[in-house]
Amino acid sequence: MSAAVALTQKILGAIPLSEAMQFSIDSLSQEEIRVSAPLEANINIHGTGFAGSIYSLAVLSGWALCTHIMDELSMDADLVVGRAEISYRAPVKAALACHCQATAEQRQSFLQQFRDRGKGRLALEITVGDLPQAILKATFVAIARSRPS
Amino acid sequence: MSAAVALTQKILGAIPLSEAMQFSIDSLSQEEIRVSAPLEANINIHGTGFAGSIYSLAVLSGWALCTHIMDELSMDADLVVGRAEISYRAPVKAALACHCQATAEQRQSFLQQFRDRGKGRLALEITVGDLPQAILKATFVAIARSRPS
Repeated sequence: MSAAVALTQKILGAIPLSEAMQFSIDSLSQEEIRVSAPLEANINIHGTGFAGSIYSLAVLSGWALCTHIMDELSMDADLVVGRAEISYRAPVKAALACHCQATAEQRQSFLQQFRDRGKGRLALEITVGDLPQAILKATFVAIARSRPS
Repeated sequence: MSAAVALTQKILGAIPLSEAMQFSIDSLSQEEIRVSAPLEANINIHGTGFAGSIYSLAVLSGWALCTHIMDELSMDADLVVGRAEISYRAPVKAALACHCQATAEQRQSFLQQFRDRGKGRLALEITVGDLPQAILKATFVAIARSRPS
């Protein structure tokens, strides 16, 4: 089973709202993630993408990328969202598609903070749509379950 | 039927994710709104409130309060979210509960902008939980369907 399929199944099984959104990870590496969901399950009163669905799919994209990075770097931690800011630029009129990248420098800094202090922060930018129609800037915080040696 | 029940039904019928979240408006006036949803439908992988559900419920609270104000002031407009910023302070361990207020000055300015320019902005702060566990600051934009005379 690919990492994308395994993490999709883990998220769908643990977060009921992700199942309602029909969340799916389309591709996943330590460098980037692509996530999608059909428009029908995520429409608003205007028949375009619901602001809450757009945010939720974007925040799950960042969360999933962080989780994959943590797995690859053997970081035993709980991951939470600290704060996030979203800007809606245009209506989403097709399937919701999110994209997020993390550079080698970002991953290294995240790991180093975590090793030094038992807590690491990763600030990510997630785009929704090709224009993009929305941009989410979110800070994820990994908190050690057992203090690393 | 009360305004709270009518608007809850309108939102549940138009936004599938609100139904998945079991969204409900508990009280509604031009001054304030209270919205809730059960924890079970909105849990994350830690068994506490999912960041996406917390955001979505808060943004719907603001959207619903704006919509009610627009109805009461006979503003014929489409309402969208422009930008929003959320801060998560503590895990949500019980039913999700949102609260939002709009002052008479805010409502008057919103209406005046709308009358003058065919577009009005309302910046609201929505709290989630009693601590509060999260705070959303969101800007809603009402865009005239037909230019008011």
